Amino acid sequence: MQRTLGTCYYPEHWPEAVWERDAARMAEAGLTWVRIGEFAWGRIEPAPGDLHWDWLDRAIGVLGQAGLKVVLGTPTATPPRWVVDKHPDMLAVDAEGRPRKFGSRRHYCFSHAGYQEECRRIVTLMADRYGRNPHVAAWQTDNEYGCHDTILSYSEAARGAFRDWLAQRYQSPDALNRAWGNVFWSMDYASFDDVDLPNLTVTEPNPSHALDFRRFSSDQVVRFNQVQAEIIRARSDAPIAHNYMGRVTDFDHFKVGDDLEIASWDSYPLGFLEDRVGADDAKKRHFARQGDPDFQAFHHDLYRAVGRGRWWVMEQQPGPVNWAPYNPAPLPGMVRLWSWEAFAHGAEAVCYFRWRQAPFAQEQMHAGLLRPDSADAPAMDEARQVAAEIAEAPEVQPAQAPVALIFDYDADWAWSVQPHGAGLSYFGLVLECYRALRRAGLSVDIIRPDAAQLAGYKAIFAPGLMHIPDDMKAALLASDAQVVLGPRAGARTRDMAIPDRLPPDLPGIDLKVTRVESMRPDMPVPLSGDGAVTGYLDEIEGVGETVLETEAGQPVAMRFGGLTYLAGWLDARGFDRLVSEIAGRAGVATHPMPEGVRIRDTGTERFWFNYNPHPVSVEAGELPPAGVIRQPR
Amino acid sequence: MQRTLGTCYYPEHWPEAVWERDAARMAEAGLTWVRIGEFAWGRIEPAPGDLHWDWLDRAIGVLGQAGLKVVLGTPTATPPRWVVDKHPDMLAVDAEGRPRKFGSRRHYCFSHAGYQEECRRIVTLMADRYGRNPHVAAWQTDNEYGCHDTILSYSEAARGAFRDWLAQRYQSPDALNRAWGNVFWSMDYASFDDVDLPNLTVTEPNPSHALDFRRFSSDQVVRFNQVQAEIIRARSDAPIAHNYMGRVTDFDHFKVGDDLEIASWDSYPLGFLEDRVGADDAKKRHFARQGDPDFQAFHHDLYRAVGRGRWWVMEQQPGPVNWAPYNPAPLPGMVRLWSWEAFAHGAEAVCYFRWRQAPFAQEQMHAGLLRPDSADAPAMDEARQVAAEIAEAPEVQPAQAPVALIFDYDADWAWSVQPHGAGLSYFGLVLECYRALRRAGLSVDIIRPDAAQLAGYKAIFAPGLMHIPDDMKAALLASDAQVVLGPRAGARTRDMAIPDRLPPDLPGIDLKVTRVESMRPDMPVPLSGDGAVTGYLDEIEGVGETVLETEAGQPVAMRFGGLTYLAGWLDARGFDRLVSEIAGRAGVATHPMPEGVRIRDTGTERFWFNYNPHPVSVEAGELPPAGVIRQPR
Amino acid sequence: MQRTLGTCYYPEHWPEAVWERDAARMAEAGLTWVRIGEFAWGRIEPAPGDLHWDWLDRAIGVLGQAGLKVVLGTPTATPPRWVVDKHPDMLAVDAEGRPRKFGSRRHYCFSHAGYQEECRRIVTLMADRYGRNPHVAAWQTDNEYGCHDTILSYSEAARGAFRDWLAQRYQSPDALNRAWGNVFWSMDYASFDDVDLPNLTVTEPNPSHALDFRRFSSDQVVRFNQVQAEIIRARSDAPIAHNYMGRVTDFDHFKVGDDLEIASWDSYPLGFLEDRVGADDAKKRHFARQGDPDFQAFHHDLYRAVGRGRWWVMEQQPGPVNWAPYNPAPLPGMVRLWSWEAFAHGAEAVCYFRWRQAPFAQEQMHAGLLRPDSADAPAMDEARQVAAEIAEAPEVQPAQAPVALIFDYDADWAWSVQPHGAGLSYFGLVLECYRALRRAGLSVDIIRPDAAQLAGYKAIFAPGLMHIPDDMKAALLASDAQVVLGPRAGARTRDMAIPDRLPPDLPGIDLKVTRVESMRPDMPVPLSGDGAVTGYLDEIEGVGETVLETEAGQPVAMRFGGLTYLAGWLDARGFDRLVSEIAGRAGVATHPMPEGVRIRDTGTERFWFNYNPHPVSVEAGELPPAGVIRQPR
Ligand SMILES: [Zn+2]
Ligand SMILES: [Zn+2]
Ligand SMILES: [Zn+2]
Repeated sequence: MQRTLGTCYYPEHWPEAVWERDAARMAEAGLTWVRIGEFAWGRIEPAPGDLHWDWLDRAIGVLGQAGLKVVLGTPTATPPRWVVDKHPDMLAVDAEGRPRKFGSRRHYCFSHAGYQEECRRIVTLMADRYGRNPHVAAWQTDNEYGCHDTILSYSEAARGAFRDWLAQRYQSPDALNRAWGNVFWSMDYASFDDVDLPNLTVTEPNPSHALDFRRFSSDQVVRFNQVQAEIIRARSDAPIAHNYMGRVTDFDHFKVGDDLEIASWDSYPLGFLEDRVGADDAKKRHFARQGDPDFQAFHHDLYRAVGRGRWWVMEQQPGPVNWAPYNPAPLPGMVRLWSWEAFAHGAEAVCYFRWRQAPFAQEQMHAGLLRPDSADAPAMDEARQVAAEIAEAPEVQPAQAPVALIFDYDADWAWSVQPHGAGLSYFGLVLECYRALRRAGLSVDIIRPDAAQLAGYKAIFAPGLMHIPDDMKAALLASDAQVVLGPRAGARTRDMAIPDRLPPDLPGIDLKVTRVESMRPDMPVPLSGDGAVTGYLDEIEGVGETVLETEAGQPVAMRFGGLTYLAGWLDARGFDRLVSEIAGRAGVATHPMPEGVRIRDTGTERFWFNYNPHPVSVEAGELPPAGVIRQPR
Repeated sequence: MQRTLGTCYYPEHWPEAVWERDAARMAEAGLTWVRIGEFAWGRIEPAPGDLHWDWLDRAIGVLGQAGLKVVLGTPTATPPRWVVDKHPDMLAVDAEGRPRKFGSRRHYCFSHAGYQEECRRIVTLMADRYGRNPHVAAWQTDNEYGCHDTILSYSEAARGAFRDWLAQRYQSPDALNRAWGNVFWSMDYASFDDVDLPNLTVTEPNPSHALDFRRFSSDQVVRFNQVQAEIIRARSDAPIAHNYMGRVTDFDHFKVGDDLEIASWDSYPLGFLEDRVGADDAKKRHFARQGDPDFQAFHHDLYRAVGRGRWWVMEQQPGPVNWAPYNPAPLPGMVRLWSWEAFAHGAEAVCYFRWRQAPFAQEQMHAGLLRPDSADAPAMDEARQVAAEIAEAPEVQPAQAPVALIFDYDADWAWSVQPHGAGLSYFGLVLECYRALRRAGLSVDIIRPDAAQLAGYKAIFAPGLMHIPDDMKAALLASDAQVVLGPRAGARTRDMAIPDRLPPDLPGIDLKVTRVESMRPDMPVPLSGDGAVTGYLDEIEGVGETVLETEAGQPVAMRFGGLTYLAGWLDARGFDRLVSEIAGRAGVATHPMPEGVRIRDTGTERFWFNYNPHPVSVEAGELPPAGVIRQPR
Repeated sequence: MQRTLGTCYYPEHWPEAVWERDAARMAEAGLTWVRIGEFAWGRIEPAPGDLHWDWLDRAIGVLGQAGLKVVLGTPTATPPRWVVDKHPDMLAVDAEGRPRKFGSRRHYCFSHAGYQEECRRIVTLMADRYGRNPHVAAWQTDNEYGCHDTILSYSEAARGAFRDWLAQRYQSPDALNRAWGNVFWSMDYASFDDVDLPNLTVTEPNPSHALDFRRFSSDQVVRFNQVQAEIIRARSDAPIAHNYMGRVTDFDHFKVGDDLEIASWDSYPLGFLEDRVGADDAKKRHFARQGDPDFQAFHHDLYRAVGRGRWWVMEQQPGPVNWAPYNPAPLPGMVRLWSWEAFAHGAEAVCYFRWRQAPFAQEQMHAGLLRPDSADAPAMDEARQVAAEIAEAPEVQPAQAPVALIFDYDADWAWSVQPHGAGLSYFGLVLECYRALRRAGLSVDIIRPDAAQLAGYKAIFAPGLMHIPDDMKAALLASDAQVVLGPRAGARTRDMAIPDRLPPDLPGIDLKVTRVESMRPDMPVPLSGDGAVTGYLDEIEGVGETVLETEAGQPVAMRFGGLTYLAGWLDARGFDRLVSEIAGRAGVATHPMPEGVRIRDTGTERFWFNYNPHPVSVEAGELPPAGVIRQPR
C-alpha cells in the first residue's frame, strides 16, 4: 500500500466560499485524506430531529471533487446542548462526585442508556446518508476516547451498569464476596445493588473492587464503540477507524480495535513531552522542540498491533499546540521527521491536525498547516516535502520485528490500582523497557497479551504482567524465543488475589516471589557490575541461573532455560544490560545508539532519525538536527 | 493638600470606657483619620430591623471630640447571621460548586438580588443617620472587594445574572454563538438560558465564554458599589472611598473608582511578599523584613490612577500580620519607610491597621499600633516620627511622570483565561516592566487604557494589551511619545478571537505575529548581546528596524518610528536594555539603582528609599537599612 | 510482669481447617497473645439480628486450647453494609462536604445516634457472650480511632451534636459570642442553632470556633469509647485496651485512656518514616529500612502515660507494609530491635501484625509472620529470638525517668488551628525536644498536662503549651524541678484569646511576650554561640537571666530561678544546648549519642539500640547494624 498524507478539516468553521480553494490547496500539497465531521453534531442537528445534511453533502462533494478522500467522523464526542437538556444525567461524574458540565467536549457518561440511544440514532442517520458516498473512503468513530480523563465516570448510570456487569460476571453476591475477599473488613454485600462505585471511600477501596471497576469501564467503551461500528459496517464498505490518544490506558484498545479495521492515533510529540511522557527537566529542555525519541515510536508500534497491521496517525502536530503547560514551536524539520518515523513503523497515512488554525474557541492557539490568515504555516513546506518523498518511496512493507514487547491494558489497571510505590506504573515500566530496546537499535513489535501472537519472535519481553492466564503461561513457556517476565509477573489471580503458591506460579519453574518491596526513587539498589534496581524489587527464591544480582548478592534476574525472570525495575543502564544479554542469547544483533538517535527497520529500508538539536555522525552518514536518513536494506 | 495619618479602629471591640483614652492617644500621636464601622453590622442591627445606632453615635462623638476625622465604612462585607438565614442562597459558590459558608467575612454573592436589597437598606439607613454628621469626613464602601477570591461566584444567582448580562450584550443567542465561535465543538446555544457558568467543564471552556464571565463578574462589583455610592452621595458631601487590595485583579478598579472620589488600598508589604508578589526564595529571604521594593510603589501608582489623583493607604501594615505563610516582624524603620513611599507617590493619607491588636478572633496575631495590653507597639514610635515629619514637609505636590505604564484589567482577564504558558500572567508582565523602570530610577504614572490619558508622556509602555480598541490603537499611533506594545498586543478581538489580519493589526504598521510559542522557564532564549526572552515569544514578520533579536537572529523588538513592538517576555536584563533604549530615544534621563534602592520624584522632592537590610551609599548620601532621604528638586 | 509477645489473627479469613495448626505454630513460636475479632462484624451478624457466634466460639476455643490468650476486639470500626443501609447518614462527611462512602473501614461519624445505638447493641451482645470466657484475657475497643483522618466529621449529625455541646459549655449564645469574640466580623449568633461547622468558610473561621470544634470532636470519641468500655467492664474482668496510632492527635488519648486499663498502639516504623515523621529526604534514605530512631520511642513513652503505666504494642510491623508512599523491607534484625525498644520503654506485650499475610483485599501487600503460602516470613525468626530472649530477661521493671516531657492534645489543636507559620505544629515541636533529650542519652517520661504528674522529676520540659490552666501554672512554678516553658506558653486563654496581661501570664514572673513572629524555614536566626532559632520566635521582655540569645542580642531563653522560658523554636543544635544547660542545672547526667544510636534505661538495665545500617562502637561494646545491647544497671 502506498503511504499517504492527509489533514483534518472543519468546513463548518469556515465560509462555504473558501471550501473549494481549501480543497484545491490540500490536493496541491499532496494530501490524500481529509477528515471531517467529528465535532459537527450541532450543525447537523441544531435542534432535536431538525436535520441539516445539506451543508455536509456539499462539503463532501467539494472535497471529493478536488480528488480528496474523506474520513467521516461520527459526531458523538460533542453532543449539542439540547441533548444534555433532554438527558441531564448523561453527564459523567468525576471521582470527587461532581457532574462534568457542558461547555467543552466529551461531556457524556459511556453508561447512560439515553445517550447511547441518541448516538445510535445519529450514527444510523449519518451512515444511512453517507455509507455509499463515493468520497467517503473511511470512517472515524467518536473522537479520542478517554481524552480529558473521560473513561471513569462515577455517575448513577455508571453505578447501575456496574452492578449489572458484576451480576453478569459473578452471578451471586457470595461469589463476588469470595472473589474480592470482602470478608477482610466486613465488606460483604448481600445484593449486587449494595455495591457502590469505588470512589470517596474512607481509605483505599478493595483493589479487586477497583480493578473490576476499571475493567467494567473499559468494557463500556468497547460496547459504545461496537454499536457505532456495527451500524456503519451495515451501511458502508469503507474501513472504520478510531483515533486513540497518547498514554491513555483507561480502556482496552485491543478490544475496541477488534471492532475496527484501522487503528489510528493523535500524535503530539511536544505537548506529550511536557504533559505525559514523565521526562525530567533536563530531558524536557533537551527535547523541548523535538519531542521524546521513543514515545511516538512506542505508540506507533502499539497501535500497529491494535489495528492488526493497519494504522494511521490521524492527527499529527504541525506546530505549537495550545494545551500543554508550555507550547514551544518545533525545530525546523521535525514535522517531516515525525511523519517519516510514523511511516517507518508502517503507518498507511499521516494526517496533519489541522488544516487552518481556528481564530476562535478552545484551540485558537493550536497551529495548523495554514495560519489563521490562510497563509502557509511553516509546517506546510515540510508536509509538501514529505508528500514528494513518499511519492518516490517504496510502498509500505511491514516486516515482523525480531523482538516482541507485550502490552496488557489489564496489567496497567492492576498496577494503577496497586502501584505499591509512589510513581510506579505499568505503562512507565513497559516504556522503559521499550526505550532500552530502541537504544540497542532494535525494531520492536508490540503485541497484545495473547498466546496466538508469540510466534516468530527471537525474544519476547513481557514486563509487569500482573495477571497471566494459564494458556498464556503455557504459551510463554512453550515459546522458542528468549522470554523475559517480571517484575510482578503473575503476581495476581484474575480476581486480584495473590496466588496460593506465590507468584509467578509458572508450571514447572521452581521460582517464588517470597516478598516484595518498593523503594524511594533516590535509593537505587546497585547491581553487581553496573546499573541498579530502582523503585521496585521482588525478592525471589528459585533454582535458576542468576543473570543479574545486587551488589549484596540478591538475585535480580534469574534464568530458567529460555525464560528469564526479572525481579526488579531496572534503571536505564540495568535495562541496557538485560537487553544486551537477552539479545545475545536470542541471536539478535544490537546497534547501540548515540543519545537522541534512533533507527527503525522496515522490510526494505533502515531509517535513521536524529531527535537532537545538534548534528550527529552515524555509520549511515551525517544526521543534521531533525535529520532523517533512509538506508536500503 | 497636607499629608495626613490615620488608623483603623473598632469601638465595638472595646469597652466604651476606653474610647476616650484611645481617641486622645490617637490625636496625641498625630493621627488625623480614624476609620470605623465596616464590620459592625452585627452590632448595628443584631436582629432584622432592630437598629442600635446609639453606640455608634457615641463612638463617632468621642472620636470627633478628640479632633479626629471619621472615615465611616458601610458594613456590607460582613452580613450578620440572620441575613444569611433570611437569604440562604446569598452565599457565593466556589469554582468547585461548594457554597462558601458563614463564619468569617465576604460571604455573599454580588449577584444576589435579596442581598443587594439588604445592602441598599442598611447603607441608606447609615447614610441617613451620618450623612451630615460633622465628624464623618469620608466614607468607605464595603471592605476589600475581591479579598479571599470573592469576585467569581458560581451560584444560581450569578448564573441567572450572567444570562441577563449576555442577553443584554449579544441580544440574540446566534450573535453570542458567532462571537464565541461556538460552532467549534457543537457548543451553540439556542437560548441564553442554556448558558451555564464556565466551571467544572470536562476540559477548558471556550475562552470567550470564560472572558465574558470575567467581564460580567467585574460589572457586578461595579454595580454593587455604585448603588452604595449613589445612596451616600445623595446624603453626604464627604468623599467616598473603597479600600482595594494588592494584586486583586478580578474586577476593573478603574470602573469602580469612577463612582468614588478617592481610591485607597491596603498595603501589607511583608504579607504580600510571601503570598502574592511571586518572588523566588532568595528574594523572599533578602526582603523578608522590608517587603518587595516595587510592589507597593506599583500599587501606589495604580491607585493614584484609579482615584484620578486622589488616593490613600487605608490600611498600612504596622508589624507582623497573621495571614501570610510566614509572618516576620518588620525591620525597624520600615513602617516609616512604607509611609513615606506612599507619600512620595502622592498619597493624601496613610492609615495604620489597626489601632490596637485584638486579643480574639481571626486577626488576633495581627499587630497594631498598640499591643493587646494597650502599651505602644514598636510601630507607634515610627508613626509619631512620620507625623512629625509630615508636619514639616511641603504639601502633596503631584507631578506628571515622564513615563506612563498602561494597566488594563480586561487584558489581565484575557491572559488568565489563556496564559498559553504555565505561570504567565498579565499582572506579572506589567510588574516586570515596572520593576525595570524603577531600576532605571524613573518615576512612573500608571494609566488606564484610555486614549484620553496619553497626553504629556515622553514614553508609554503598554505590555500585554491583549485587546486594543480601534480608538486606542489610533491614539497610540498618533502619540508623540515613544510607545512600546507587546507581547500579545492586539492579539484578540473584543470577542477573544484572533484578528483576521493577524495581531497586532495596527493600521499602517507592516507587522504580523505569525506564530506564538511559550517555553519552559528553565529554557531562556538568549538575546544577541545580553539578556534573554523567557517564557513567551511572538514570532513576528515586519519591515521595522530590529531593536532586539535572539542570538539566532529572530527579532524580539522591532521599531516603526515612535512605536516599538516587543515580541517576547524579557528577563530583567532584557527589560533593562529595552527601558534604556526607549528612555534614550524619549530623552528621559535614567539613574540605574543599586539593588534594593529606589527613588521617586514629586513636584518638589526626590525621595530615596533603601529596602535593603544593609546600608547603601548613594549620590544623595548614606542610606541606612530602611533609610529614607528627601532631597529637594 | 513478664514481657510477652503476640500476634493479630483473623480466623474468618482462613478455612477453619487451618486454625488448629496456626494456633500450634503461634504457641510454638513463643507467642502469648492473639488478637481477633475487630473486623468481623460482617461474619458475626451478616444481616440485621442474624447472629453467627458459633464460628467465633470455635475460633476462641481452638486458640485457647493451644494455650494462647485471646484479645477480643469489638467490631465497630467496620460496620457491615446493612448498617449503612439502615442509617445512610451515619457516614462521616469530609471537610470538603463529601460523605465518605462504604467500601473500606472507619466509615462512620462518631456523632451519629443511630450508629451509636448499633454499637451499643453489638458490643453488649459480644460482652454478654465472651465476658466470662476463660480464654478472653483482654479486650480491644474498635480499632485505631482517628486512622484515615476520621475524627473530624462535617456531617449533619456532627453539626447537631456540636450545637448541643456548645449549649452545654456556654449556656447562652451571648456567652459564646463573648468567649469567641464574635463581634470581630459580625459573627454573633442569636441561637446555638445558628452555629455551623467551621469548614468551607470564605476565609479562615474564628480560631475559637475551630478550637471548640476540635475539642468537641475529641469529646465525641471519648464518649463513643466510654460506652463500649462500660458495657464490657460490666460483663468481664479482663482488661480493656484500645490500639492507638502514630501521630494521630485529633482526640485526647489521655481522656480515652482514662476509661481503659491498657493503652496500646500500632507501631509501623518504616511506614511512619515515609508518611508522618516529617523527615527530610536524606534522613528518609538513611533510615529507610530501620525507621526513625526516636519516633517509636516517643510513642512508647506517650502511651505509657496514656495507659498509666500499662501499655502494649498491639501491632508491630514485621516486614514491608502496603500503605506508605514507599514500602521497603526492614533491615535484618530490626523487627527484634523494635520489639526490644518497646520492652525497654516498659511494654507488657508486643504483638506482630499480622499472623499470615492475606492474599486478598486492601492489605494483601502487608507482610505477616507467615507468607501467604504459610511458610515462615523473615520476621518469624526474629520473633522467635525475642521470645527466647524475654524468657531469660528480668521482668518489666518500670522506673521513673529523671526528665519529664509534657504532651497536651489541647495545645496540639490550638497550634493546628493557628500555626502562625506554615509547617509549624505542636507535635513537631515536642518531638524535636524529645529528640534532643534522646540525643543526650536521657530516658524520658512523657506526662499529661496535669499538676498531679509533676512530682519526682529533676527536669520538666513543656514546650508549646498554648493554654495553661491556673492550677497547672501554680504547680509548675512550685516544682523543684528545672522547668522549661515556651515558646507560646500560656499564649491563650481557655477560649483562645490573648490574655489581658500578655503571655505567658505567670503569677510572680516578670515576663511578657510583646510580639511574635514566624519566619521562613530557610531563614534561621543564629544564636550567639551555636545553633539557631528557626520558624518561630516570641519577642520577650522580662527581668530574668538570659540563657540563650540571638547574635543580635535578642533573648531566646530567659531564666527565673528554676523556670526557663524558651522564646523560640530551636534547631537541633539549639535544643542540644538547651538540654545540656537544663540537665546541668538539674543534676542529670547526659550521654551524647552517636548518630542513630539511642539508649533507654529501665529499673534493671540500660538498653543500647543501633538504628544505623552500619556498625557503631559504643562504650557498651560493638553495635552491629540493628544491634541491641542489654547492659545491667
Ligand atoms: Zn433547522
Ligand atoms: Zn436590639
Ligand atoms: Zn445467618
